Amino acid sequence: MTFRVGVIGGGQLARMMVPPAIELGIDIRVLAETEGMAASIAATAVGDYTNLDTVREFAKDVDVVTFDHEHVPQSVLRALVADGVTVHPGPDALQFAQDKLRMRERLGELGIPMPDWARVSTAAELDDFIADHGGQAVVKTARGGYDGKGVRVVTSAAQVEEWFLALDEDGGPSEAGGALLAEELVDFRRELAQLVARRPSGDVTLWPVVESVQQNGVCAEVISPAPGSAGRVAEMAARIGTTIAEELGVTGVLAVELFETTDERILVNELAMRPHNTGHWSIDGSTTSQFEQHLRAVLDLPFGATGQRDAWSVMINILGGPADGELDGPTARAMADQPAAKVHLYGKQPRPGRKIGHVTVSGEDLDEVVFQARAAAAFFQN
Amino acid sequence: MTFRVGVIGGGQLARMMVPPAIELGIDIRVLAETEGMAASIAATAVGDYTNLDTVREFAKDVDVVTFDHEHVPQSVLRALVADGVTVHPGPDALQFAQDKLRMRERLGELGIPMPDWARVSTAAELDDFIADHGGQAVVKTARGGYDGKGVRVVTSAAQVEEWFLALDEDGGPSEAGGALLAEELVDFRRELAQLVARRPSGDVTLWPVVESVQQNGVCAEVISPAPGSAGRVAEMAARIGTTIAEELGVTGVLAVELFETTDERILVNELAMRPHNTGHWSIDGSTTSQFEQHLRAVLDLPFGATGQRDAWSVMINILGGPADGELDGPTARAMADQPAAKVHLYGKQPRPGRKIGHVTVSGEDLDEVVFQARAAAAFFQN
Repeated sequence: MTFRVGVIGGGQLARMMVPPAIELGIDIRVLAETEGMAASIAATAVGDYTNLDTVREFAKDVDVVTFDHEHVPQSVLRALVADGVTVHPGPDALQFAQDKLRMRERLGELGIPMPDWARVSTAAELDDFIADHGGQAVVKTARGGYDGKGVRVVTSAAQVEEWFLALDEDGGPSEAGGALLAEELVDFRRELAQLVARRPSGDVTLWPVVESVQQNGVCAEVISPAPGSAGRVAEMAARIGTTIAEELGVTGVLAVELFETTDERILVNELAMRPHNTGHWSIDGSTTSQFEQHLRAVLDLPFGATGQRDAWSVMINILGGPADGELDGPTARAMADQPAAKVHLYGKQPRPGRKIGHVTVSGEDLDEVVFQARAAAAFFQN
Repeated sequence: MTFRVGVIGGGQLARMMVPPAIELGIDIRVLAETEGMAASIAATAVGDYTNLDTVREFAKDVDVVTFDHEHVPQSVLRALVADGVTVHPGPDALQFAQDKLRMRERLGELGIPMPDWARVSTAAELDDFIADHGGQAVVKTARGGYDGKGVRVVTSAAQVEEWFLALDEDGGPSEAGGALLAEELVDFRRELAQLVARRPSGDVTLWPVVESVQQNGVCAEVISPAPGSAGRVAEMAARIGTTIAEELGVTGVLAVELFETTDERILVNELAMRPHNTGHWSIDGSTTSQFEQHLRAVLDLPFGATGQRDAWSVMINILGGPADGELDGPTARAMADQPAAKVHLYGKQPRPGRKIGHVTVSGEDLDEVVFQARAAAAFFQN
């Protein structure tokens, strides 16, 4: 027989699982939301992942179900598990990636360092939190946010008035009970991310902690390893990542987004329980990529080595793409100019702000690697 | 628009083109011989590649047609070109990979070093050649041979009697006129291979010359670079590879199999105009794999860097596979034992002697790399 993995969601994360699946002889099948998505080459079904019958039908012929995103409802996930389907990560873990309030509560119980936070159900509660935190706060919807969506920096509760109204109208975006998450605006030096993978049988493996440079709330550039992270920073990030993976029972890849504060603390910002943008460098820069490791993890296969193949890898996202939507010319020019650059395109139509690909360069000299990666990516951003 | 590449043939070489096609955003389509072949994930058509209508229909929707093998008849290739289809490598180049007599004649014109050879149409001619070459010769059918098939070491023409009979009966396996190829049995120290890629617009790029260890006429193990090849051997191999690619007008990847003789000459053994088993190490060991480079070449895109990422890469073929045909257990055990090994499986059913996958390990210490690669591959050969 052959290992069969079913991926719910047809975006670029599912797409990037396909090459390692092919190399390892894994039969990978994707339930895509629509025709022609990034992962369409492996799409064996098209349908609505919130519909239990659709997901059940898809899950019938695979050894394990995993995900391109974290949006499959708990009710669907729990029904699959009750059916006897193997699901990784499972609903007990995924709930903490699906609901930021639950995540904060759980990490708090574990003593994981975090920004100050509060559950706020009313404008008055939020204004109190703002007053207690220097006149500003980050407000997040508990559910549904990603890439800066559902996140707002405010100085008054009035600035998220419509979010409170939405809570009132439909019981709120949070299953946990109609509340928003308020967080202190952390004075951070930079953002880091710790990528971890954990098998159902318990093994945990880690890649180096990386630096993630955000632009407009979206990851723009990742440097692996994070410069100057050897020693204390790497140890703290690894300990936090390992603790979260183990205590939350995460299976597959876990990305822990971190703040390194100006007073040298490491605080958990966000969690993602799937391959993550901050790990794309690993396709070219690590012996085992996050996508291959995720497949190994969800099949409970032994992990591959996660060592970095060169001193540095730098990944730059291609955001939006060329104004005329035409990728062939930029691809050829980037290849001509930067022969060491690994160009990755997701088969998505360019659109302002959309992640349509990325470029990775690896090498021994950080300045050179950064220059080459930026030069190659620039051809796509004209 | 998106680059569209059509590959004729659904074997493992087509399969291994799929991951880089996905990464580069190339729309790859395969014309497979049957359902369920190694490259089935990209198969958009199933049919007979010797049937012009089938191939024509397949070629309609792609920017370039290329190949998993060299068996598409010249008549089909030339009809496609006459239709205006872009074909790489083209029929003028491919004829030299399809017909070993033509290859020897052409390389002779170019002054490329080769074993002594002769066109033999009769048993008497072959016996003369044998007598002139120490009582033995290698006899090859001009067409259709691979992996040791159509190749025989003989001491008398009687030992290939049925090949001569076949020539008499149907005008012979050689379009060039009903003859076999006789070659001196070279006293070689080892076999090497030079992998080259050439774009239609002229650029040529090379990987390091590798050592190829054959068992029973089949490539078993490849070491890149060939130990002790720096300097003279690498220069000679590179010059030969470049000359052949340029003078024969090869487009895409060219593999030149070489003998390094006991008296330190480098002689051309065979040519293949496609990605080749001696280049599989490049998937994990080079910045740009032979499969990615082949796609770039046939689309006339600029080449990626071909530098080797570690001091050594060793590839071991998985030949035959486990006796019980079951790959899941061996895969898990190989992964557990050798976390640095890159396991590649082709989605083929194990069968004695069949190439069903390979394992590559890269690193700084050759002994260690060889040990790890052999250890990982051994789990599949129980």
